[in-house]
Amino acid sequence: MSEKISKIEIVIKGSKFEELKDALNEIGITGMTVTQVLGCGMQKGKTEFYRGTEYKIDLLPKVKVEVVVSSVPVDDVVRVAQEVVGTEVGSGKIFVYDVSEVIRLRTGERGSAALS
Amino acid sequence: MSEKISKIEIVIKGSKFEELKDALNEIGITGMTVTQVLGCGMQKGKTEFYRGTEYKIDLLPKVKVEVVVSSVPVDDVVRVAQEVVGTEVGSGKIFVYDVSEVIRLRTGERGSAALS
Amino acid sequence: MSEKISKIEIVIKGSKFEELKDALNEIGITGMTVTQVLGCGMQKGKTEFYRGTEYKIDLLPKVKVEVVVSSVPVDDVVRVAQEVVGTEVGSGKIFVYDVSEVIRLRTGERGSAALS
Ligand SMILES: Nc1ncnc2c1ncn2[C@@H]1O[C@H](COP(=O)(O)OP(=O)(O)OP(=O)(O)O)[C@@H](O)[C@H]1O
Ligand SMILES: Nc1ncnc2c1ncn2[C@@H]1O[C@H](COP(=O)(O)OP(=O)(O)OP(=O)(O)O)[C@@H](O)[C@H]1O
Ligand SMILES: Nc1ncnc2c1ncn2[C@@H]1O[C@H](COP(=O)(O)OP(=O)(O)OP(=O)(O)O)[C@@H](O)[C@H]1O
Ligand SMILES: [Mg+2]
Ligand SMILES: [Mg+2]
Ligand SMILES: [Mg+2]
Repeated sequence: MSEKISKIEIVIKGSKFEELKDALNEIGITGMTVTQVLGCGMQKGKTEFYRGTEYKIDLLPKVKVEVVVSSVPVDDVVRVAQEVVGTEVGSGKIFVYDVSEVIRLRTGERGSAALS
Repeated sequence: MSEKISKIEIVIKGSKFEELKDALNEIGITGMTVTQVLGCGMQKGKTEFYRGTEYKIDLLPKVKVEVVVSSVPVDDVVRVAQEVVGTEVGSGKIFVYDVSEVIRLRTGERGSAALS
Repeated sequence: MSEKISKIEIVIKGSKFEELKDALNEIGITGMTVTQVLGCGMQKGKTEFYRGTEYKIDLLPKVKVEVVVSSVPVDDVVRVAQEVVGTEVGSGKIFVYDVSEVIRLRTGERGSAALS
């Protein structure tokens, strides 16, 4: 596998998910895997609100969206995610990982062919 | 840690999970972590069915099975997964990642010793 | 991104989670993502108990805690996790991965600046 394949993990508020999904489709994302998680980030004395309650250090419900990409640049994904989530505290975070192989089970295709 | 350790992430339909679990046990998989997720893949105009309803672009319930292996070859896992899931659209996808360390908490064992 | 960034995945029993979270806060962990999963490990003829029932090969409910760190040493996380979970069979396992990028969406900060 010569092409670089990356997994982009986007952890955001559930209320932004539908908008993010549509924005990802528009930049050519061909698949995604979504998990309900609980999360906390760096608070630096700031607080987040969930259903009218103020949280300081505790875990809040978040959505983790995983997209594995080859041709779509990681920075395009970062840009659309930033446009969607805005600039409130707790807007979300992106983690990027190298992927060493991808296989589409139905066809046995590998690498970027398995993503297109 | 000199041996290569890999995480194999298998995203399939829940209806195939029990059969996959048994097949993985048979090729010597020593552990797995399972998560309920929602997913969509490349559709290319094809559709998937879930409980009698036709879905085009939306998210369908899937199961993510993570297996971290050292001695078991990744291709053995791919082969048994292909045998189990068949060749329908939406059969599933495998993503492989390098793992830089594994620790069994009870004993402090590391690397492949922590997997056997 | 020059600093090394790692993701530490800790899979433990749910009953140990609150204690682990507090211990991680004490060593300077700035964020975490938590997922409810099902898991099984190597059993070697030993059994685990869940709510009074004995399980041999089946899947037990576990909690997956993901912490992405740069300045906090991975071994500090391993040490506190070991202190918290004890030495029963099924105490848990840690998997470590390289992270190639982190972005805080609110500010666009990258790398270790996005973690602090
Ligand atoms: N270091 C980390 N390790 C693992 N997950 C993290 C980490 N930091 C954040 N997350 C996940 O990302 C989610 C969103 O984080 P969040 O947006 O609050 O980041 P932040 O660094 O606190 O930025 P902000 O100051 O804008 O709140 C968290 O709820 C958590 O699930
Ligand atoms: N690029 C991707 N990034 C993240 N997750 C993906 C990606 N592609 C697929 N998945 C996950 O794998 C699951 C199964 O994908 P699926 O089998 O539909 O793949 P596909 O490429 O669409 O192949 P097919 O043409 O056989 O449907 C999806 O529901 C999703 O959870
Ligand atoms: N090889 C593996 N791949 C993926 N997940 C694993 C693997 N091994 C363990 N896990 C996950 O870690 C959890 C805890 O594992 P566990 O503590 O039972 O490890 P173990 O190797 O069986 O050690 P012990 O002998 O102490 O039981 C499992 O329930 C599973 O979710
Ligand atoms: Mg925050
Ligand atoms: Mg599909
Ligand atoms: Mg075990």
